Amino acid sequence: MDMNAEHSAVTVLGLGSMGSALAAALLDRGHPTTVWNRSPDKARSLAERGARLAATPQEAVAASPLVIACVLDYEALYTVLDPVAGDLAGRTLVNLTSGSPEQAQEAVRWAHSHGVDYLDGAIMTTPPGVGDPAVMLLYSGSRQVFEAHRPTLATLGDPLHLGTDPGLASLYDAALLGLMWSTMTGWLHGTALVGTEGTPATDFTPVAIRWLDTVARLLTTYAPQVDAGHYPGDDATVDVQIAAIDHLIHAAAARGIDNALPELLRAAMEKAGAQGHGKDSYASLIEVLRPAPRD
Amino acid sequence: MDMNAEHSAVTVLGLGSMGSALAAALLDRGHPTTVWNRSPDKARSLAERGARLAATPQEAVAASPLVIACVLDYEALYTVLDPVAGDLAGRTLVNLTSGSPEQAQEAVRWAHSHGVDYLDGAIMTTPPGVGDPAVMLLYSGSRQVFEAHRPTLATLGDPLHLGTDPGLASLYDAALLGLMWSTMTGWLHGTALVGTEGTPATDFTPVAIRWLDTVARLLTTYAPQVDAGHYPGDDATVDVQIAAIDHLIHAAAARGIDNALPELLRAAMEKAGAQGHGKDSYASLIEVLRPAPRD
Ligand SMILES: NC(=O)c1ccc[n+]([C@@H]2O[C@H](COP(=O)([O-])OP(=O)(O)OC[C@H]3O[C@@H](n4cnc5c(N)ncnc54)[C@H](OP(=O)(O)O)[C@@H]3O)[C@@H](O)[C@H]2O)c1
Ligand SMILES: NC(=O)c1ccc[n+]([C@@H]2O[C@H](COP(=O)([O-])OP(=O)(O)OC[C@H]3O[C@@H](n4cnc5c(N)ncnc54)[C@H](OP(=O)(O)O)[C@@H]3O)[C@@H](O)[C@H]2O)c1
Repeated sequence: MDMNAEHSAVTVLGLGSMGSALAAALLDRGHPTTVWNRSPDKARSLAERGARLAATPQEAVAASPLVIACVLDYEALYTVLDPVAGDLAGRTLVNLTSGSPEQAQEAVRWAHSHGVDYLDGAIMTTPPGVGDPAVMLLYSGSRQVFEAHRPTLATLGDPLHLGTDPGLASLYDAALLGLMWSTMTGWLHGTALVGTEGTPATDFTPVAIRWLDTVARLLTTYAPQVDAGHYPGDDATVDVQIAAIDHLIHAAAARGIDNALPELLRAAMEKAGAQGHGKDSYASLIEVLRPAPRD
Repeated sequence: MDMNAEHSAVTVLGLGSMGSALAAALLDRGHPTTVWNRSPDKARSLAERGARLAATPQEAVAASPLVIACVLDYEALYTVLDPVAGDLAGRTLVNLTSGSPEQAQEAVRWAHSHGVDYLDGAIMTTPPGVGDPAVMLLYSGSRQVFEAHRPTLATLGDPLHLGTDPGLASLYDAALLGLMWSTMTGWLHGTALVGTEGTPATDFTPVAIRWLDTVARLLTTYAPQVDAGHYPGDDATVDVQIAAIDHLIHAAAARGIDNALPELLRAAMEKAGAQGHGKDSYASLIEVLRPAPRD
């Protein structure tokens, strides 16, 4: 049990840009931190900040009841962990390496077969955000393991436990990154559009960010519609959005902006309309994205 | 001059769902409000709330120094205004009808040729949001006209003046709606993905909305990169995003989700990579969206 978070010992395996940020955040909050990296030079600046350097993964694992792994991918993870599986027995492994839900599910089987407690996680920030309590770290798998180490995990950012299926953190990670790329690309398209008339990105962006708050309120309205499978178009219908996106497509085309993104969005709206959702809200587009129910 | 906003008289032309919301917000804040609509029945509930009903557009225009128009499109706008151009002379027209930047520029010419002060605007909410100070109404054109009527305009939502080019409000409107559709569709794709594993939209959405705050911080980081035309990939490069989007595409494909959106995003990333931006930040994708500089 992690009764005394400030002083519980932690090991970090992998000191790439993310692993180094994790170790630095633990050191900043006073955790005795042991680190190991395949290329030992990356450990040097952490040693200056008080980290204990382990010469081998075995020595690193032996140093702490909690081991956090953050390497490139699952292949690298097993390369590091397979030889020290016996040393990990009775300890807790928190794996923050990115991968698929299936890889997380396989890792929990690997861990349990070696008597290791396992928690899967996903870090929803770039390295400079690690340690910021506004930043989310997503976890899934054993709630008991999560609760036992919550105070230590909280030093890395706000820890959210999504559920006991260990694949959930990876699945949310993929879904949220998809939202990020969609949003960033929509923002870039809009930035390019207003840029043709001389508006700097630094003028447009604060307005765009305020607008995202309004969009977030729409998502809150639409989420229960998705769960209910019923999409009342009280405020703005798919048909109205189709008319409005034509304004965007024309304005952007006239200014030489690549319209692949709005044309794809228009096609999705048209498809929803053709499936009878013209008078429904935008949330009805989920019907054209997800697998048709088998019958 | 709008020295006494609480008591200045306002006319609203067009009582569709948006025009009715505008008139209701003005009445709620104590403005003597005259209304007109082609189909007079839509004025009835506003009359019960204290609006003065005008029998003709001419009577409506004559009633107030400030006339707000919100009809379906510019064709409807000129159908209503052409016959009363002489009556509008010396008054101010604030046009909240959606259209293109070019239509706004033509409207300001029309107004000036008839001795009418003109301001163009775009309403960044659906009707239920009108009157909420958190909601933005965008204006462009004469700053003097904007400042003179700012207190009255503030009853409809937070008024932002974007610049003297009257087309700017429409251009921002198109750009922001594009951001909205991109974000909503990315959210629906993620919602569909986590939904396949039994996560309700109402569980995923609060996490997605928190994540949008992190994304907004990225936009703030990237905006000056766009203006500088220099995209340092310190935290996350296009190459890293390409690797990560493959996780999303595989996870979604395995679950039967339509991948047109992430595949388009991946193609844009690949194109940026091919143009030498692999080690740059995501902001470099603007280079593949906007017109190539002529040389
Ligand atoms: N950077 C981000 O913004 C971010 C955000 C969220 C999640 N993540 C995830 O965090 C994980 C690490 O990312 P990063 O940014 O730290 O990457 P990175 O800077 O490229 O570091 C990769 C790490 O993996 C190690 N590694 C690679 N192959 C190995 C092998 N065969 N055996 C042992 N160690 C090996 C590297 O060791 P060497 O130093 O010896 O090469 C290094 O410690 C990834 O899964 C990434 O998706 C990153
Ligand atoms: N609703 C929104 O969420 C929203 C958000 C932002 C901006 N807007 C913009 O606000 C404007 C009005 O939208 P709305 O939602 O109020 O639409 P709406 O409910 O369909 O109302 C359309 C209005 O235009 C009038 N109209 C149409 N053709 C006309 C003509 N030839 N002559 C005279 N009047 C005519 C209608 O009069 P009748 O009642 O006689 O048909 C009605 O007052 C549009 O430009 C829209 O893009 C709407």
